[in-house]
Amino acid sequence: MNLKIAVLAGDGIGPEVVLQAMKALNATALMFDHEFIFEEALIGAAAIDKTGKPLPEQTLNLCLNTEAVLFGAIGDLKYDNDPEAKIRPEQGLFQLRNALGLFANSKSIKPYEGLLSSSPLKKEIIEGTDFLIYRELSGGIYFDEKTLSEDGKVATDLCKYTEEQILRIAHLAFKAAQKRNNIVTLIDKANVLETSRLWRKVVTEVSKEYPSVELNYLFVDNAAKQIVAKPKQFDVILIENLFGDILSEVASVITGSIGMLASSSIGASHTLFEPVHGTFHQAKGKNIANPFASILSAALLLEHFGLVKEAKKIHEAVEKAIALKVVTTDLNPESKFGTNEVGDFVSNFILN
Amino acid sequence: MNLKIAVLAGDGIGPEVVLQAMKALNATALMFDHEFIFEEALIGAAAIDKTGKPLPEQTLNLCLNTEAVLFGAIGDLKYDNDPEAKIRPEQGLFQLRNALGLFANSKSIKPYEGLLSSSPLKKEIIEGTDFLIYRELSGGIYFDEKTLSEDGKVATDLCKYTEEQILRIAHLAFKAAQKRNNIVTLIDKANVLETSRLWRKVVTEVSKEYPSVELNYLFVDNAAKQIVAKPKQFDVILIENLFGDILSEVASVITGSIGMLASSSIGASHTLFEPVHGTFHQAKGKNIANPFASILSAALLLEHFGLVKEAKKIHEAVEKAIALKVVTTDLNPESKFGTNEVGDFVSNFILN
Ligand SMILES: CC(C)[C@H](C(=O)O)[C@@H](O)C(=O)O
Ligand SMILES: CC(C)[C@H](C(=O)O)[C@@H](O)C(=O)O
Repeated sequence: MNLKIAVLAGDGIGPEVVLQAMKALNATALMFDHEFIFEEALIGAAAIDKTGKPLPEQTLNLCLNTEAVLFGAIGDLKYDNDPEAKIRPEQGLFQLRNALGLFANSKSIKPYEGLLSSSPLKKEIIEGTDFLIYRELSGGIYFDEKTLSEDGKVATDLCKYTEEQILRIAHLAFKAAQKRNNIVTLIDKANVLETSRLWRKVVTEVSKEYPSVELNYLFVDNAAKQIVAKPKQFDVILIENLFGDILSEVASVITGSIGMLASSSIGASHTLFEPVHGTFHQAKGKNIANPFASILSAALLLEHFGLVKEAKKIHEAVEKAIALKVVTTDLNPESKFGTNEVGDFVSNFILN
Repeated sequence: MNLKIAVLAGDGIGPEVVLQAMKALNATALMFDHEFIFEEALIGAAAIDKTGKPLPEQTLNLCLNTEAVLFGAIGDLKYDNDPEAKIRPEQGLFQLRNALGLFANSKSIKPYEGLLSSSPLKKEIIEGTDFLIYRELSGGIYFDEKTLSEDGKVATDLCKYTEEQILRIAHLAFKAAQKRNNIVTLIDKANVLETSRLWRKVVTEVSKEYPSVELNYLFVDNAAKQIVAKPKQFDVILIENLFGDILSEVASVITGSIGMLASSSIGASHTLFEPVHGTFHQAKGKNIANPFASILSAALLLEHFGLVKEAKKIHEAVEKAIALKVVTTDLNPESKFGTNEVGDFVSNFILN
């Protein structure tokens, strides 16, 4: 296969972890006789520094002309702590999600056998957990009108959803459930939010087209607790944008470290693959960041393009690394291995 | 002391757990020579059934004329699953919070020694955790304009905050931190929300008046994870309304069961005390609901009115019950004790 991949490493530890994903992809290309062409481009704070824009045109054009984006991380403390900043790194990611029409973000929560003891949760709580999160990515409070009064004393954010936005991701979630354990759990705050009530109405309608699938409802507050306390009950979680952002991080504790979690963002004709973790600035350049999530995002990319054997090889490499404790210090505080060494192990494993 | 207490038991398990709190308060009154006068009134689904309104005038008037409300739980499945319902039980609580000017909800997250093993989290993660959550209660996406388009296909919820709303709770949080470990953690989503940026600006300003207190910032997604993974880092959490709702439930897993967690809601001249858990309808009338949270909300009430010895006695009773395993099945699956028996144990302990 011949595949052009746009690589947007972004900020913080983005570049160093994405590098390990590229090494894994290169090894896979060699072993399985594919050609992956990487084209790197700027996004986020790195892009603002060089071009003044969080999503330079060149980057956007590149992504519009590729089917697959490999993404790192985005954000910078200097913007986080400046409430007045008008240009922000994250805007680059939002603009990109919009421009590429990425509306569904999915991730799989399934702990690795070898990491069951790395979680702050008890082994018996997480063992056997296996669920998917479908997070809506195009709507909600992220994208609609924001205002700040002239005197700077009153701020607003509008949360908005349309039936259409809900429909398209709902179908994806039900289809996924059909291939799994036939349970969809819709997470919302329908006792308070009008948008949540729209979600409940639309999703309940959609569920009628999937009679084999059971639809459950949970309020987001309760759900946040259930994910920690009884994660095995879930099969497919369907959730709006901001709630999905929060609950994905909660769910990451099941996998032992957020450094293990990758996600796919899907649109009609574009896809983006990224680690769930953020920029983790404290670790930048120190060769201590966990590269597994980025490497696993490369596996998601391969799977998406039908390269199932290839993706499996990457998964095996990661499992082997965990079994041999070739992991970063987030997974084993005594470890002597850094980002690069873990990445080398994975690509060498693939090559052998 | 002579104290009139409005008792709003509400829905689901509300009535049966509040009954145990009243038993504890009665025992305290007897032993410490106080007079507590309980006046019960309707709220929520129970009130809608009888009067058509979630907050009948009589209830409101009663609460306006008392300094203290003892609250149970609110909500009913028949409204949750009816996106069209115009009248909802929860509106009763929102109207009450507004009418009483309750703007700050606080709860203490500190696991009981005897319950360290009941948490889904590992003992070494939670042992020693001791933090307060200050959740803003009067603003955010709960109260502002909600719309649904004529054709029912587009819904919106407006999230709004004013400087004034942020100021008053920020001061409470910093004052609380001064009496503790001098750390305030502001939790927001300032990389996305304008309201969060206003919070960051205002709280940063307020912090200058409390030079001994360290102010930290966390994004809500990261914070949700940190509460589970590293809860000991927190001293005082300051958080807006909806995020506070979600993260409070996440934090409840630290206490072994949400059935252990009580909260105070504070206004200029009114207060309300309630368990953090909801109506738990599946348990209603089965004598299996954990009454500790409601009993502990009574202890918060006593503390608030300066009855510190009395509150301590209730805490001792709860600790003793836990030590002797006189607990409901959420805390000990093999337990033979029900809501009433646990409540009896607590009031008998106080009387002896
Ligand atoms: C970087 C940040 C704005 C972003 C979000 O909130 O969507 C991130 O947390 C994510 O989940 O992709
Ligand atoms: C009953 C519900 C609407 C309420 C809320 O979300 O505020 C509850 O969860 C709470 O925390 O008091």
